[in-house]
Amino acid sequence: MINSEILKKKRLGGRLGDDEIFHLIEGLKNGKTDDLQITAFLTSACIIGLSPDETTALTFAMRDSGMKFNFRHLGKPVIDKHSTGGVGDKLSLLLVPIVSACGVAVPMISGRGLGHTGGTVDKLESIPGFDIRPDEKTIYRLMEENGCFMSAQNDFIAPADKKLYHIRDITGNVESTGLITASILSKKLVEDLDGLVIDMKTGSGAFMKSMAEAEELAKSMKTVAELCGVKISVLFTSMDQPLGSKIGNWLEIEESLDALKGNCPPDIREVTLALAAEMICLAGIKPDTESARKLAAETWDSGKALSQFHKMIESQGGSLEEGTKKYASHYEFEYKAPRSGIITSMDTTGIGIAGIILRAGRQNIDDEIDYGAGIIMEKKIGDEVSSGETLARFRASDKELFHRAKKRMDESIFYCQEKVDSPKLILRAMK
Amino acid sequence: MINSEILKKKRLGGRLGDDEIFHLIEGLKNGKTDDLQITAFLTSACIIGLSPDETTALTFAMRDSGMKFNFRHLGKPVIDKHSTGGVGDKLSLLLVPIVSACGVAVPMISGRGLGHTGGTVDKLESIPGFDIRPDEKTIYRLMEENGCFMSAQNDFIAPADKKLYHIRDITGNVESTGLITASILSKKLVEDLDGLVIDMKTGSGAFMKSMAEAEELAKSMKTVAELCGVKISVLFTSMDQPLGSKIGNWLEIEESLDALKGNCPPDIREVTLALAAEMICLAGIKPDTESARKLAAETWDSGKALSQFHKMIESQGGSLEEGTKKYASHYEFEYKAPRSGIITSMDTTGIGIAGIILRAGRQNIDDEIDYGAGIIMEKKIGDEVSSGETLARFRASDKELFHRAKKRMDESIFYCQEKVDSPKLILRAMK
Repeated sequence: MINSEILKKKRLGGRLGDDEIFHLIEGLKNGKTDDLQITAFLTSACIIGLSPDETTALTFAMRDSGMKFNFRHLGKPVIDKHSTGGVGDKLSLLLVPIVSACGVAVPMISGRGLGHTGGTVDKLESIPGFDIRPDEKTIYRLMEENGCFMSAQNDFIAPADKKLYHIRDITGNVESTGLITASILSKKLVEDLDGLVIDMKTGSGAFMKSMAEAEELAKSMKTVAELCGVKISVLFTSMDQPLGSKIGNWLEIEESLDALKGNCPPDIREVTLALAAEMICLAGIKPDTESARKLAAETWDSGKALSQFHKMIESQGGSLEEGTKKYASHYEFEYKAPRSGIITSMDTTGIGIAGIILRAGRQNIDDEIDYGAGIIMEKKIGDEVSSGETLARFRASDKELFHRAKKRMDESIFYCQEKVDSPKLILRAMK
Repeated sequence: MINSEILKKKRLGGRLGDDEIFHLIEGLKNGKTDDLQITAFLTSACIIGLSPDETTALTFAMRDSGMKFNFRHLGKPVIDKHSTGGVGDKLSLLLVPIVSACGVAVPMISGRGLGHTGGTVDKLESIPGFDIRPDEKTIYRLMEENGCFMSAQNDFIAPADKKLYHIRDITGNVESTGLITASILSKKLVEDLDGLVIDMKTGSGAFMKSMAEAEELAKSMKTVAELCGVKISVLFTSMDQPLGSKIGNWLEIEESLDALKGNCPPDIREVTLALAAEMICLAGIKPDTESARKLAAETWDSGKALSQFHKMIESQGGSLEEGTKKYASHYEFEYKAPRSGIITSMDTTGIGIAGIILRAGRQNIDDEIDYGAGIIMEKKIGDEVSSGETLARFRASDKELFHRAKKRMDESIFYCQEKVDSPKLILRAMK
């Protein structure tokens, strides 16, 4: 097979065979495929699209570009969750301890913040000492001892995905249902999963602004996951406002810890239990979501999930006490409501960007994050505020940033005079 | 301007502005555009197409990636010819001396053989001592002294085209009217032309197998050349059989020399005079093609063109005597007609490939050429042959190659029993 002929076939609208896609991706390892050739493939895929079979072949080829775990010897169902990303979305930090404490093996490989959204890896990295890149041996030990681990994408996990992602980023080829599907699933399939729950976020703080886009991606993920032999369940959840009240890496660790201790904002509680129930159901531990939800709530309320959270963090070298000390000296700024009224909606992307202005996230790929920086929201959609009342608090290690962040917040919160219902959190499920 | 956003715009079907295309191509010089980004652009351009304005902007940007000649001080019209490529197409070797001897400045930058076709640069390189890469100063001197030069694409001539051509080749993005137009015209515009004659070849030995494809490219070239302020004239000519009788680098130098001495195959004579007439007309030296053709024929028959040919080769360091000595020891093989009949048609691409088998051309880009190798055709379409009669002679420095070349020839010549007219040479003109 000659790469340029495979590429020409795809460019002219032909469907590539599994062998042709494998040949292209496999060639990245041995230098037989040039990065320029992968770029041509990605551009054609983005313009013309990928069939489910092509997406599946690409997913497998990307998965097989690195090592693959085998957790069969654990004798447990292996389930993971993927979120399409949001603002204040710290649910992985709750789901891993809750669901693993229910007897499910949860091997979670996460990503960094992307655009205006936070990433689980960045949040974990805010915990002093936490090893976000455990080696293969450590991962197997953690799975045996804790039934879970949380890790960044190591160099040995789907390295082709890492390369393809970089190329898509610099060549304007990000938005492609097939390529997004293959990117997400290839990393997840490395984890030797039985099932995967997708938290498909829609709304003003999500990448998928409309339900139609979210549904297209969900259908593609479902088709390909099933062709790959992985059970999948998709929950469509709202990202019309930040989840919980805290946005920022260490702030979200704090809020997760508080939540597991029983002091949990109701939106976090509702979405976490819904996702946990899906994971437990897929694992086959409970026959329906109602009983699975009950088991998750009991595990949470009994303190078992909290112990599991502490165990997980300590096993990976993290110290929550050190974190509390480390970020205590950040400056705080009270963001006051610029007018009176009822909060009718939020540009949640804008709030995420206000957080980035405070250096809670990256503006450019190589920016350094201030792990202690962020925003604490005191109000939600539907709340009534008076002009000058504290609506949020900013944290930063540089006071100069507060002014720009304030300006962005002013543009991101909208008010009216009538009563507003708070948005529905769980929109629908696709099984 | 951000490259990835320009690329996204093109991918989604938007029309790029001149500034956006310049930004991409200009960035190749200063490292602000990655080769991966150019690949994405080329793939989108190949799938979606380029508008005439986009093609024109790309042509200018590629031209401006290197130096640009200025021949205004010569006080002569500056005209060049481009052929889309064929088998036995040595017409540049005749046109440059004939037309420049008529008072037209002819700065000819040529290419190497592509696929089954030969390239003028390879033919010139077969002449011992001939400098196919004169430097800028030498080029100006040659233009002043001889009114012409023949050169390969130096590193300072449209280097962006060289890079884009390589990327298109390895990424399966060769066939694109817009990209082909920009590639040809960008190099030609470096020559500070007043006019350009295109020899658009169609038929079994051409890249454009159909008239429709050839017409599409001709229209695109005409539109863009005119937007660039260059007069253009396109002749559609037949490539249904090899031009003249000799195929191979040194063999074609020999045939050109013989032709200028008066021993010229009629097909070469007819097409050369037609193209020369177009060049002389575009130059404004004669008011119509009839009188221009007459001037070209007189210049040829008077021996002025032959003197000009010798002068040109000597000025660039070449020695025809050395060539005659150098290639005298090649083996010869008589290719005999496998059956009796009238030659009805030829797969001229197959005959070109038979030449490549003898090493007259490259199978791979870094193959070495045997400049003395090639094929001498003794028969044309419409000729009657008897089984066992010599139809062609092969030349090679390795006897082992004859068998494979013979096999390819057997597959490339077709016979019938009825009288066949020889194909029309000049199909039509587009002005």
